[in-house]
Amino acid sequence: MDAGRRQYRSRLQIAADIIEIAKDGTRKTRIMYLGNLSFELLQRYLDMLMSFGLIQVQGGNGRGYIATEKGRHFLEEYRELRRLSEMVEGKRRALERSLTSVLEEPVST
Amino acid sequence: MDAGRRQYRSRLQIAADIIEIAKDGTRKTRIMYLGNLSFELLQRYLDMLMSFGLIQVQGGNGRGYIATEKGRHFLEEYRELRRLSEMVEGKRRALERSLTSVLEEPVST
Repeated sequence: MDAGRRQYRSRLQIAADIIEIAKDGTRKTRIMYLGNLSFELLQRYLDMLMSFGLIQVQGGNGRGYIATEKGRHFLEEYRELRRLSEMVEGKRRALERSLTSVLEEPVST
Repeated sequence: MDAGRRQYRSRLQIAADIIEIAKDGTRKTRIMYLGNLSFELLQRYLDMLMSFGLIQVQGGNGRGYIATEKGRHFLEEYRELRRLSEMVEGKRRALERSLTSVLEEPVST
């Protein structure tokens, strides 16, 4: 749920977004709204995340969902992945800058 | 210069390959051959790497090149970037596996 998120979300990102929203338990409509997902896509993700034990139905009416312990672990790993990815991108940009003059266009390859 | 390298090389990768080959000093023809670069592309990279102080002419005849201290530092940073990138990719694959059943096709998005 980052402000600067790209338009395209990976499967991993969508899964993490849903688990994040459902972290402390929430209703399906809230996941759909905050997750910016169609009803159909949300249902496929909920089914998948439940089948992998990352979320579970909350309460008895079947309309609420909450992240499992495994889901919370997934979320922590995902955040670590994002943190490392950003670090890698920072390093890559720093190296690219060392190949870019402020006066010249970079050599295109 | 990795065995499993993709066909497409980034500008950063080509620069690092050239500096790696010229690390202890070498002739232009050897960089061209080992670096798998056309004469024209090599010349553009050599000019660029020299202008940024990453390599320098070796000896007096202008046909040999050697990495500078700055070039060696660039190479170390580049290797660290590769190491971190591989770690990130390993983590990403591990997370993706946790969303993939051996029995089902993944949900395509």
